[in-house]
Amino acid sequence: MNATVTEKEIITPSEFLQNWQGHRLLTRRVIEAFPEKELFEFSIGGMRPFAELAKEMLAIAVPGLKEIVTGLQEPYEENRTAFTTKQELLDAWDEATEQINVYWQQIPLHRFRETVNLFGQYNFPAIVNITYALDNEVHHRGQGYVYLRALGIEPPAFYDRW
Amino acid sequence: MNATVTEKEIITPSEFLQNWQGHRLLTRRVIEAFPEKELFEFSIGGMRPFAELAKEMLAIAVPGLKEIVTGLQEPYEENRTAFTTKQELLDAWDEATEQINVYWQQIPLHRFRETVNLFGQYNFPAIVNITYALDNEVHHRGQGYVYLRALGIEPPAFYDRW
Repeated sequence: MNATVTEKEIITPSEFLQNWQGHRLLTRRVIEAFPEKELFEFSIGGMRPFAELAKEMLAIAVPGLKEIVTGLQEPYEENRTAFTTKQELLDAWDEATEQINVYWQQIPLHRFRETVNLFGQYNFPAIVNITYALDNEVHHRGQGYVYLRALGIEPPAFYDRW
Repeated sequence: MNATVTEKEIITPSEFLQNWQGHRLLTRRVIEAFPEKELFEFSIGGMRPFAELAKEMLAIAVPGLKEIVTGLQEPYEENRTAFTTKQELLDAWDEATEQINVYWQQIPLHRFRETVNLFGQYNFPAIVNITYALDNEVHHRGQGYVYLRALGIEPPAFYDRW
């Protein structure tokens, strides 16, 4: 994939944002579905608990958009969001939801296709980096579904994102 | 989301296809990583074994594109692909890879944004239905990662899709 537009595109920025925020709403419901203790401690096969996976999502989304908008590069910081309870995580999640909307409106159309060396590590067109963030969230949230099922908890429906 | 283009778009059809096929390559590697027996039998929390999840992906991708291209509607058929071994599943996966490329080239640009009542059930713009298929694959493949970890098997890297 490169940054030159050679054909007409099929998804608008506002549609992409709507899909992403729909997924983020579903991820929020998955966080809510975990009991407090299991959110921070339950794991399968040596994987990270779901709170750690959510922390990774928070470490990518707003800092990534911030760099795309401002051009100011900071190293990736997994632990940038401090929380020790489910409610604190949900509050951080909601704050990120608002910040994503604010930063998104500041991305000029041409910027989506410009190469951004995100966190000094991921040198791709901005839209590729953003798509990676979304796919990574869906990937890890799917893992949260297995954790919930293993705990005997019915996860929210995958299509329920509105 | 609606089918009217009101702003310039950010992803081209060929880029979308490249991302999807990259994910499908990774899903193929996840299928390969399962031992034969566990692919068809291993499960956590009452969920479907990974072969069943892969069967769902196969039931959506090519039949969905076929309906988008031809306009011919058939009901969703989970069991359309018959396989009883890992190799047969991989062969079906590779056949679908080729068919997706062939059908994709036959989707006129305007068609991506037209509403398609996929399988007579999912009445959305074609690109929304296709995005759902991709997100659904990433979601279920993430679950396969947990199965592999629970089996003590290292999954392929999430970013290794080329």
